[in-house]
Amino acid sequence: MPDNPLQPAFVLVEPQLGENIGAAARAMLNCGLADMRLVRPRDGWPNPKAGPSSAGADRVLTAARVFAETADAIAEMEFVLATSARRRDMVKPVLTPRAAAVELHRRLSDGQRCAVLFGPERTGLVNEDVMQADALLTAPLNPDFASLNLAQAVLMVAYEFHTAGDETDAYQLPMGRSRPATRAETDNLIAHLIEELDRSRFFATPDMRPVMVANITNALMRMGATEQELRTLHGAIVALCGRPRQRAADGNLDSGSLDSGTPSA
Amino acid sequence: MPDNPLQPAFVLVEPQLGENIGAAARAMLNCGLADMRLVRPRDGWPNPKAGPSSAGADRVLTAARVFAETADAIAEMEFVLATSARRRDMVKPVLTPRAAAVELHRRLSDGQRCAVLFGPERTGLVNEDVMQADALLTAPLNPDFASLNLAQAVLMVAYEFHTAGDETDAYQLPMGRSRPATRAETDNLIAHLIEELDRSRFFATPDMRPVMVANITNALMRMGATEQELRTLHGAIVALCGRPRQRAADGNLDSGSLDSGTPSA
Repeated sequence: MPDNPLQPAFVLVEPQLGENIGAAARAMLNCGLADMRLVRPRDGWPNPKAGPSSAGADRVLTAARVFAETADAIAEMEFVLATSARRRDMVKPVLTPRAAAVELHRRLSDGQRCAVLFGPERTGLVNEDVMQADALLTAPLNPDFASLNLAQAVLMVAYEFHTAGDETDAYQLPMGRSRPATRAETDNLIAHLIEELDRSRFFATPDMRPVMVANITNALMRMGATEQELRTLHGAIVALCGRPRQRAADGNLDSGSLDSGTPSA
Repeated sequence: MPDNPLQPAFVLVEPQLGENIGAAARAMLNCGLADMRLVRPRDGWPNPKAGPSSAGADRVLTAARVFAETADAIAEMEFVLATSARRRDMVKPVLTPRAAAVELHRRLSDGQRCAVLFGPERTGLVNEDVMQADALLTAPLNPDFASLNLAQAVLMVAYEFHTAGDETDAYQLPMGRSRPATRAETDNLIAHLIEELDRSRFFATPDMRPVMVANITNALMRMGATEQELRTLHGAIVALCGRPRQRAADGNLDSGSLDSGTPSA
């Protein structure tokens, strides 16, 4: 998997804390990435503090490769991004994480090997490492507090990469064991409710009745109930009224017949 | 600041580790957010382990408010999202983090108060808390390893919220103290190089010369050099040739005059 050409390698340059390396491995695997490379990790490698914070992403840590120099870690790469929280005095393109994700996908689909460099916790990447990159990756965060934790930076880049290749619907409404109610079923619930409200003399004046019916109808329509929920609500109305529904539910809201049940004032 | 109606509150329900609360505060402030609320933090509050991992986001921790119940923490809210790594057996909308960010911005601009709930590290939110939310926020991550660290989940949501309101150009190329070269300046560098290559009898055959000139021209055009870089490259060519440029640089690439300088074969 580390040589999977469809994934960018994440290169941590001189990471200081084993906990952060573990958390970075977890964040990578959360986003389906597994090619981790370490350049001169401060406390050597393996680091016993990395495992616990990886929360089960051990295979990323086990497969991680260690290099003496950044140039060695990216020797076979065709496109390299350097993460940086700050501007560098270099004429080099600066991409947002989202634009970087699109560019990584484009190049990976073209068969290019790609890497993203992350600097040490305290200082970020030195200019000598940034120079080796094709572009900078800089997130437009709070300018007064822009420095991300190392593992957070890894998550941000990995998340954008994963999301750029993901086609999950932005909005979903799973129905579980039920299904969306049909319009006739919803109309029937509204009719049942209005019918009982008429019986209960809820509508104080005939003038107000149309507006109040419209409000109740709009609120219940907006709910977008499932068929199961409508049955529950029918039962709730019956329970509140203390008696079963008296007319057959035919699915048609006929305001004339409802009005004829009980005078509305 | 905690009552800023233009920001969502982030509600950590029963957070276990002070380190994670601190890291969550850092992630929030990275994204310009400051309204943190804690429901029954396991180890009480304040927690001395939160400060160090906040890396300077102390003001978020200091302003954090503690509640006994989730309902108390969100009592004044008009829109609440519940983060969840997994499906719930509930008929409730599920938004991606990106769609959730758009929805939060829409409602906040409308003056609505909004909150995002995050569950305890080990288990996530209980269903009783999820029920109180208008919608679930679920990131489409690696289905085999979807559980994010608490502070990572906070960063992901905060980052999407911040990004949704950000207009930074996806691609930037800062020029520092220089400026983009004009076409005439770039043509002049290419002319200088070709001229010296002609003199050095680089082009082995006249047949190949046009293709090689085109290749070199395209590579140098693609570089998109600054005016400063062109001056450096002029100097580099001069140094390699061991003599100053002999013809005046006039900014025009006249292939006839270049060819007349030295026979190309």
